[in-house]
Amino acid sequence: SKQHHITLLPGDGIGPEIMSVAVEVLNAIALKHDFKFTFTEALIGGAAIDETGEPLPEATLTACRNSDAVLLAAIGGYKWDNLPRHQRPETGLLGMRAGLGLFANLRPATILPQLIDASSLKREIVEGVDIMVVRELTGGIYFGQPKGIFATETGEQRGVNTMAYSVSEIDRIAKVGFETAQKRGGKLCSVDKANVLDVSQLWRDRVTAMAKDYSNVELSHLYVDNAAMQLVRAPKQFDTIVTGNLFGDILSDAAAMLTGSIGMLPSASLGEAGKPGVFEPVHGSAPDIAGQDKANPLAQVLSAAMMLRYGLNESKAATEIEDAVNQVLDKGYRTGDIMSEGMKAVGCQEMGEVLIKLI
Amino acid sequence: SKQHHITLLPGDGIGPEIMSVAVEVLNAIALKHDFKFTFTEALIGGAAIDETGEPLPEATLTACRNSDAVLLAAIGGYKWDNLPRHQRPETGLLGMRAGLGLFANLRPATILPQLIDASSLKREIVEGVDIMVVRELTGGIYFGQPKGIFATETGEQRGVNTMAYSVSEIDRIAKVGFETAQKRGGKLCSVDKANVLDVSQLWRDRVTAMAKDYSNVELSHLYVDNAAMQLVRAPKQFDTIVTGNLFGDILSDAAAMLTGSIGMLPSASLGEAGKPGVFEPVHGSAPDIAGQDKANPLAQVLSAAMMLRYGLNESKAATEIEDAVNQVLDKGYRTGDIMSEGMKAVGCQEMGEVLIKLI
Ligand SMILES: CC(C)[C@H](C(=O)O)[C@@H](O)C(=O)O
Ligand SMILES: CC(C)[C@H](C(=O)O)[C@@H](O)C(=O)O
Repeated sequence: SKQHHITLLPGDGIGPEIMSVAVEVLNAIALKHDFKFTFTEALIGGAAIDETGEPLPEATLTACRNSDAVLLAAIGGYKWDNLPRHQRPETGLLGMRAGLGLFANLRPATILPQLIDASSLKREIVEGVDIMVVRELTGGIYFGQPKGIFATETGEQRGVNTMAYSVSEIDRIAKVGFETAQKRGGKLCSVDKANVLDVSQLWRDRVTAMAKDYSNVELSHLYVDNAAMQLVRAPKQFDTIVTGNLFGDILSDAAAMLTGSIGMLPSASLGEAGKPGVFEPVHGSAPDIAGQDKANPLAQVLSAAMMLRYGLNESKAATEIEDAVNQVLDKGYRTGDIMSEGMKAVGCQEMGEVLIKLI
Repeated sequence: SKQHHITLLPGDGIGPEIMSVAVEVLNAIALKHDFKFTFTEALIGGAAIDETGEPLPEATLTACRNSDAVLLAAIGGYKWDNLPRHQRPETGLLGMRAGLGLFANLRPATILPQLIDASSLKREIVEGVDIMVVRELTGGIYFGQPKGIFATETGEQRGVNTMAYSVSEIDRIAKVGFETAQKRGGKLCSVDKANVLDVSQLWRDRVTAMAKDYSNVELSHLYVDNAAMQLVRAPKQFDTIVTGNLFGDILSDAAAMLTGSIGMLPSASLGEAGKPGVFEPVHGSAPDIAGQDKANPLAQVLSAAMMLRYGLNESKAATEIEDAVNQVLDKGYRTGDIMSEGMKAVGCQEMGEVLIKLI
């Protein structure tokens, strides 16, 4: 039977406990299919800093490169917040994105019918929201040169970062945007700030030019400020959004929060076809509840499902996991973050056990 | 009696009709006080392009510089969207901000009790929201050099903008942030992306250092992605927000939309003490309803009130205008954008007449 070789990066905070649930779920699903998993665990983020002094040891990058897909939990915590930039957990994450060429970040913001009331928005505004944000992940202001803190002619300090996109960088992410829209509702909204930024003008020109190759996709453009407003006002108008690294960071988080249950949302970061992708929950490492069996493992489990679908081409198994999560919610099981009256409160581990029984 | 000399910039779309209501309101309020207004009208945006070929004629900038304050309505429209960048309406706006040194943009997002149901968020989430976003307005990626579309070594096009802040630019806007917080609820949240951007790291360091001069202000920091989430999740946690030009553009619009009635929100753009500020509604020029007497003039009227308070030191008159707006809403008068069942629908002009009767 087929072997899928997975690198596991549990990371920090609640990372290890939610990862352990996801691994059990993956093993359970493999029993029902003609594939097997082999897992290698590697260090990233704060855990890696503590052990090796750097947030992304070379051995971790090598392990990731040699696998079929990477499952990441979460990184970071107060403990490492005041280290110099090159030693921060986030720097490890950015290094991994660059090192694996993960230029396309897919961030679904889907509202689950069982959890609608957790949203801060009115039911009629969010019911049925199903947005996919396609965020460029290895370019833009996150990586542009020059960057740093420099002295000006007068000796004053000046902080500088560069937002830059080349035609080829825009084209490859726009293509992912169009293809994603094609597989979904057929609507693509490209977000930029072309009324002010030259880099956005180039972005808009290229996306507009590409539209002729996708006559079945309805393309629109929004300025980023307006997009933020429209997400709050009427999120159902969106199907697929494609945007740059920084705007995608902000808008995908805003979109995620519309659902009211960020503990439920997975994401995928993909590179060139055939190269390993990285799959991880949208939420953070929640150091305040780490190790207390309080964490919600469902976003991690849904990230494993995304890994099956987008990284390993096992969409049947992915759907089975997603169905199981749905059933667990239908049956009323809730971790603390999504708890509401009349539901059954469970911890991280018990949530995993219920899931596995259903699979 | 005192003379306040005001430059009026009606601009495009609904600009002229809402401006005419604001001018009538200002004249009515002057009758009750020991000051008079003199008004000079000047061209900006599309209207200026049509007449002179450029969005900010030198004569307009001179008129603004020679006045005590500037009241702006709205600029832009489809008609001018495809002109080259230096001829776009927005370029005129940016030129005015730079030309008048308007480095501090104050954008209140206040929910009016009469209009709570217009919000897409639940009543209990937005009731009582009262946020002031202090946005840096003449620096950051809006103005940083280098910028443009350049050819790389391989001949590929590359769009570039530079997000840069010097220490003095950060310090002067941070000071406005602290002082604004001091006059309000005493809480300042500085928003940046210091986990990724060097320019944000400098920003955070300077803001943190300044906190010792404002021991009565409680300072916190948020990354911009988290700030976008928190605005959606629990906006009442915010009092005053201080942030850079681009983040302020996005977050102030998101905050404005939380209120559900963006047709009600004014803003102020201020430079050095003693220099004229510019006061304008947050909403755009709404070309689709221009000239049909459908526009909501209240944000323009409230911008005139902000002008009295922040630009002319006439806070008593400002409060009287704000009270009148409040009463108009209490009496149930509504333009189309804020209309709801059981209220009295009025046009732009009639809304003005009702206001003036109350003053
Ligand atoms: C941790 C941080 C560097 C990261 C980012 O800004 O990309 C995070 O916010 C994310 O969205 O994955
Ligand atoms: C029109 C545009 C240039 C402007 C900006 O981005 O500053 C607008 O969105 C605003 O917020 O005043």
